[in-house]
Amino acid sequence: MKKLINEVDDVVLESLDGFVAANHRTHQKVNGVNGVIRKAENNKKVSIVLGGGSGHEPVFLGLVGEGMADGAALGSVFASPDPQTILEVIKSAYTDEGTLCLVINYAGDTMNFGMASELAGYEDLKVETALVTDDVASAPKGQEDERRGVAGLLFITKVTGAAAEKGYSLAEVKQIAEKANRLTRTMGIALTPCSLPGSKPNFTIGEDEYEFGMGIHGEPGIKTKKLKAADEIVTEIIEGLVDDLVLQGGDEVAVLVNSTGATTILELNIVFRQVANLLKKQNIHIYDTNIGSFCTSLEMAGVSISIMKLDNELKSLYNEPAYTPYFYRKGNA
Amino acid sequence: MKKLINEVDDVVLESLDGFVAANHRTHQKVNGVNGVIRKAENNKKVSIVLGGGSGHEPVFLGLVGEGMADGAALGSVFASPDPQTILEVIKSAYTDEGTLCLVINYAGDTMNFGMASELAGYEDLKVETALVTDDVASAPKGQEDERRGVAGLLFITKVTGAAAEKGYSLAEVKQIAEKANRLTRTMGIALTPCSLPGSKPNFTIGEDEYEFGMGIHGEPGIKTKKLKAADEIVTEIIEGLVDDLVLQGGDEVAVLVNSTGATTILELNIVFRQVANLLKKQNIHIYDTNIGSFCTSLEMAGVSISIMKLDNELKSLYNEPAYTPYFYRKGNA
Repeated sequence: MKKLINEVDDVVLESLDGFVAANHRTHQKVNGVNGVIRKAENNKKVSIVLGGGSGHEPVFLGLVGEGMADGAALGSVFASPDPQTILEVIKSAYTDEGTLCLVINYAGDTMNFGMASELAGYEDLKVETALVTDDVASAPKGQEDERRGVAGLLFITKVTGAAAEKGYSLAEVKQIAEKANRLTRTMGIALTPCSLPGSKPNFTIGEDEYEFGMGIHGEPGIKTKKLKAADEIVTEIIEGLVDDLVLQGGDEVAVLVNSTGATTILELNIVFRQVANLLKKQNIHIYDTNIGSFCTSLEMAGVSISIMKLDNELKSLYNEPAYTPYFYRKGNA
Repeated sequence: MKKLINEVDDVVLESLDGFVAANHRTHQKVNGVNGVIRKAENNKKVSIVLGGGSGHEPVFLGLVGEGMADGAALGSVFASPDPQTILEVIKSAYTDEGTLCLVINYAGDTMNFGMASELAGYEDLKVETALVTDDVASAPKGQEDERRGVAGLLFITKVTGAAAEKGYSLAEVKQIAEKANRLTRTMGIALTPCSLPGSKPNFTIGEDEYEFGMGIHGEPGIKTKKLKAADEIVTEIIEGLVDDLVLQGGDEVAVLVNSTGATTILELNIVFRQVANLLKKQNIHIYDTNIGSFCTSLEMAGVSISIMKLDNELKSLYNEPAYTPYFYRKGNA
């Protein structure tokens, strides 16, 4: 896949420089590492730090902003940021109230965030970590803790960021993150693979096939299937999500229909049409919907659907305003 | 290219249904035709109507919302909406202050919007049309009126929508649209073609080539060139834009770096980094930047860069708040 880049080795830093230049009123780079923080307006709140590999944009740096995250640490494409990068972002975004790191559950990320937290501890910083494990396809029911973190990070950041903004303590903010994670599920499919800058795709998908349950780093899915109508694929995903989250009639949810890259809004809307039809039949009420590219795998064509079950507390936090370069909510819909 | 659709003939209507379902609090479908309007909150303002082929999402329907457009008429993929569809959208969004249609300059669109305006005239509706002609590559300097309309529509809708929201008359709103169009330029390149649902791509681009100045309907560009570093491609585009718009040191501009589909935010940020470097060297001040997918050509990989030169009036209008599903501005940056 041809890409608009200069040198392969400069992709992440140049992209970060461009992001910071475009958002210089609200964001700044962390000195010496590939990280970005929100320009501080309120140092009396818990700060929220995200991080992970590049190539998932707007995740992670595009979710830094008012009512969402305070900083993001970036690794190379599809590779975790190193502990020093994470530590510097934590320190740059740090407040006396402490920092909560929201970490998607991949081995490299959990290890490096763990080391960064330990290093922060040596400097007497209060740093807690909450894992994001929303990807249903990556481990069976009963082993939820082993699941990967994917696009559901958007919802978890939304409510956790709102809790921090409202002045919740570090322990309370962490509880919100853990609760939101327990109530969020994602399933995704891919129509095409993606390729790292300077490389060829690391797997192929046949012209009449799709991958079910692929990872966000270009990992192949758990099943290869014959391509079928969008409505049938969506039915399969929604049945899986409703079952795993044990949703029932009367429940209220937020829905995210996420393009993994090349899939168009034209298609995402067709996907959501069927999501809405299916949930309506089961009397599950969609409180709010987000449709777009939020957690991508470079230019991979595909879609993931995330559902967060809302209780009164999460709904109230969901409704708080949020303004980032790639996600906004005016508040009180 | 594999797509997430059901029947090819149902793509536009199903996608519109999904969009309206997702945005039901703020948007509604126009009865009987493929059109969407904003739920009216203020019928004492000029209404702004957009329209054109599908496949450019979020343009056009995703720019309907507070401070932007009031309605959008949708054609089939890459085909103009028919006059009856446009007329119904105009009537549904109509207010006593009249309607301004912002029309991208393609033969089918100008013809059908022209006929719709004529039909509206028979019903004593005040309807005016302003053409969007921002695509520098589509006709030489001196023949600006013959140029196509592309991603610059975002900026033109932004300031025109703000003028309407502030209570400008139909003639005044039209003047703003025409002025914004005179001060807006776009140039784009493509790395891959795109394919209509159910069809194969209608041209190819070699693995080491890109198209300069392609249209937004999958038309090939005006030149095929050897792929080179992003910075060199951006330099070529920015030189063309600065020259055509006769930008000078001290000028202030808004910039849009737009993905035509599959090009990632990772790459768009690299593109903007070079835009910022080049404009800074010429002492041209970037007042605001938008980076993302706004005016797409299905899943085409490519990028367009738009620049709107800001005078005090346009800057003030640009700063007004705007909230649509795919573009927001909090106001007073």
